[in-house]
Amino acid sequence: MSQKYATRAEDYSKWYNELVYRADLAEHSDVRGCMVIKPYGYAIWEKMKEILDKKFKETGHSNAYFPLFIPKSYLSKEASHVDGFAKECAVVTHYRLKNAEDGSGVIVDPTAKLEEELIVRPTSETIIWNSYKNWIQSYRDLPILINQWANVVRWEMRTRLFLRTAEFLWQEGHTAHATKEEAIKEAELMLDVYADFAENYMAMPVLKGRKTESERFAGAADTLCIEAMMQDGKALQAGTSHFLGQNFAKAFDVKFADKEGKLEYVWATSWGVSTRLMGALIMTHSDDEGLVLPPALAPIQVVAVPIHRTDEELAAINAKMTELSEDLKKRGISFKYDNDDNRRPGWKFAEYESKGVPVRVAMGPRDLENGKAEIARRDMKTKEIVDFDGLGDYIENLLNEIQQNLLNKSMVYRTENTRTIDSYEEFKKEIDKGGFFLAHWDGTAETEAKVKEETQATIRCIPFDSNEQQGKCMVTGKPSKGRVVFAKAY
Amino acid sequence: MSQKYATRAEDYSKWYNELVYRADLAEHSDVRGCMVIKPYGYAIWEKMKEILDKKFKETGHSNAYFPLFIPKSYLSKEASHVDGFAKECAVVTHYRLKNAEDGSGVIVDPTAKLEEELIVRPTSETIIWNSYKNWIQSYRDLPILINQWANVVRWEMRTRLFLRTAEFLWQEGHTAHATKEEAIKEAELMLDVYADFAENYMAMPVLKGRKTESERFAGAADTLCIEAMMQDGKALQAGTSHFLGQNFAKAFDVKFADKEGKLEYVWATSWGVSTRLMGALIMTHSDDEGLVLPPALAPIQVVAVPIHRTDEELAAINAKMTELSEDLKKRGISFKYDNDDNRRPGWKFAEYESKGVPVRVAMGPRDLENGKAEIARRDMKTKEIVDFDGLGDYIENLLNEIQQNLLNKSMVYRTENTRTIDSYEEFKKEIDKGGFFLAHWDGTAETEAKVKEETQATIRCIPFDSNEQQGKCMVTGKPSKGRVVFAKAY
Repeated sequence: MSQKYATRAEDYSKWYNELVYRADLAEHSDVRGCMVIKPYGYAIWEKMKEILDKKFKETGHSNAYFPLFIPKSYLSKEASHVDGFAKECAVVTHYRLKNAEDGSGVIVDPTAKLEEELIVRPTSETIIWNSYKNWIQSYRDLPILINQWANVVRWEMRTRLFLRTAEFLWQEGHTAHATKEEAIKEAELMLDVYADFAENYMAMPVLKGRKTESERFAGAADTLCIEAMMQDGKALQAGTSHFLGQNFAKAFDVKFADKEGKLEYVWATSWGVSTRLMGALIMTHSDDEGLVLPPALAPIQVVAVPIHRTDEELAAINAKMTELSEDLKKRGISFKYDNDDNRRPGWKFAEYESKGVPVRVAMGPRDLENGKAEIARRDMKTKEIVDFDGLGDYIENLLNEIQQNLLNKSMVYRTENTRTIDSYEEFKKEIDKGGFFLAHWDGTAETEAKVKEETQATIRCIPFDSNEQQGKCMVTGKPSKGRVVFAKAY
Repeated sequence: MSQKYATRAEDYSKWYNELVYRADLAEHSDVRGCMVIKPYGYAIWEKMKEILDKKFKETGHSNAYFPLFIPKSYLSKEASHVDGFAKECAVVTHYRLKNAEDGSGVIVDPTAKLEEELIVRPTSETIIWNSYKNWIQSYRDLPILINQWANVVRWEMRTRLFLRTAEFLWQEGHTAHATKEEAIKEAELMLDVYADFAENYMAMPVLKGRKTESERFAGAADTLCIEAMMQDGKALQAGTSHFLGQNFAKAFDVKFADKEGKLEYVWATSWGVSTRLMGALIMTHSDDEGLVLPPALAPIQVVAVPIHRTDEELAAINAKMTELSEDLKKRGISFKYDNDDNRRPGWKFAEYESKGVPVRVAMGPRDLENGKAEIARRDMKTKEIVDFDGLGDYIENLLNEIQQNLLNKSMVYRTENTRTIDSYEEFKKEIDKGGFFLAHWDGTAETEAKVKEETQATIRCIPFDSNEQQGKCMVTGKPSKGRVVFAKAY
């Protein structure tokens, strides 16, 4: 590969952008802030969707579909929601174009103005609760456990592929419950589903916790989140699960009759993950040579490349690879055999390395003679000569090992970059080096805002598992109920 | 069921609308023309998607995702395309709302006006070919075989659930080829995929053919289609596959270097089916009691209901049903056991009948004693007492039989309602009775328009298989190359 790419150390941001192009995952479109997700990138997203969808169904949820457009007035119904979402959004004002009289093309037809403008959904609480209003009369209609896979639009000024785009793909769960307890349990359950997915499929360790009030979802009573650490030490919010209290039920007047016939407002949750997870996946594992994928999410888990001079050699290798292909297929391992004669093996090696294929098999005439194959693993960039007999077993084990190794590596990285800190002076010096900082905080929005203003670091979460230890706020010295996680974030 | 519903004979259109609500498939939203697809309806659509997606992948296609928004000027680039699609569409003109100064809510921020308006995609040829331009340099980059699952918006004035809605869900394939022949073959292949899906999964026979020039997709050189007949004798276009020639390649200047290095415009196809198929499915099989579903697309294929007086009886039936559940699960048959004590068996029978569950199992104390179960099939509304031993085999066979029976029934219906006709006078008398009319046509747009104006019937397609027989146009008496299919249509 003659082209020189930025390394993580040189320019992390450039490395990321180049990697997304190099691995052929996505590209910027001509439409401001909107990306094109290319087939290879979309194949990874499809794997994510498939696994998550199965988990949602196993936990009792069904999919449904609600309108793309939200009447402008709906956004105003929930007071804090409108502040969070009504500002930067795509507004549909007209429903017709017409030919320009001067023949220059088409123009908006001024007579086709909508009475009420429509907003392209930035999230669907309002439009969904407007429907739930008609679906819920009695406790017998509860719970409602619905998920939607959809595109949403938030008019972002500064966009980055996968991490922050005007349009993105996501799922949004919206549930309705008869009791507060049940709704809280639901929000916690879905956070666990996300955490399990992050760790066991993405091989990405996450901290579970809750957001501070100022970082909460607009309209939520409580926002739970999973936070991951990227290789530049920055935090990335990978998923959120909101306990919405009765806020949307009140805004849309959704009541149910309980067993005694008494009318009560319904309790709600919403939860979502998006194509942002693609960015998290890329930044957790990839290296200077390109994408590194955990086997559980790799569209191609194993690629094989023949190395031959003659047609006879190729034919013999082809036969062996057909054998391997059948073996791997039975094991449910996705395999690609690339014997395209237009490309040299060296080109192919670099190509599949860029694309993060976990295992590469190469076979040449000498391997053939000796009953061997060369196995390269993408995560460690190591190679081994292995017996062709039993290769299926070997590869199956290797894929499991790679999956585990990637999780371990990221765990170690996170541990090494997580520090307990008590002095705000030190914090200010250290924060630019990246990583998570466990520090005491006095629980006020003022202190939180001060830290953000002075260091650009935010409280990523109040972690579930470190809330016991009392102490003094690193900034004000006031009492603190426990350490929270500060970091700079995406 | 105390509620009285319209029958097909009384009011076909009312019957359809009521059925969609009754079976809990979808409902109108408060957003003009946009529907909410409810979980049960969405589950059927998911089955359709899953089967189609598999077929697309088996024929070499990959999924990708392109932006929701299309810059207004793109639509003008392909001359006939703009006439077909630019007219009734959702136009985004602003990207921000702000709080009204009088505190009355939010208003569109006039300072946040887009320089160029964005259109919510009515179809994606233009935005996709604008990307393909950068992806294609040489014959080595071809073919590109991409599909997209997406929502699209066409501002329809008169909407009907599933059949015609402002927003709908669909897939759109967009392929690029080095030769005309290859592109034509692709368009034909995908039409075959659609026809196979319609007949073997939807149990809906379809005519394959091509559209006349005036019925072609805006921008296509040739539009192939599958046409189905609904129970009111009207035609429904169930899917289209377009050979686009070099129209979009020329509009977006997409050329490739062939093996000799000569630059040529790329050849294209596009093809799509949508949630309209849900409407087709409903109208092909359902009856006055509600939805009838072919087993291949039924979210619940078998439902079982216990009929008991005592808890002991229920426990014994529960045990039998657990046995049946395990058996059916092994066979890949989806099974629901509804032993909810809040509802009576009669209510449940009516409910699952409305929802079109293909097979219902009922078991009471006497059945239990005799080792029997009562099996009701939804398509024929017949019941049988069957030995519990071997019930798995019985049900598996029955599901296949129902699938086949539904296809046969619709085939017979279509045959009975397809007529060969030579007199335009007779045609004008008969057309209101519904059905397909095979008639000679002189091949002119004038005659086609005259028939449409005088009878509201259109040429649904020039069928592939009846193009040999020459004759005289039923309207003008001029020579005709073969009979075409006239019908009133959805």
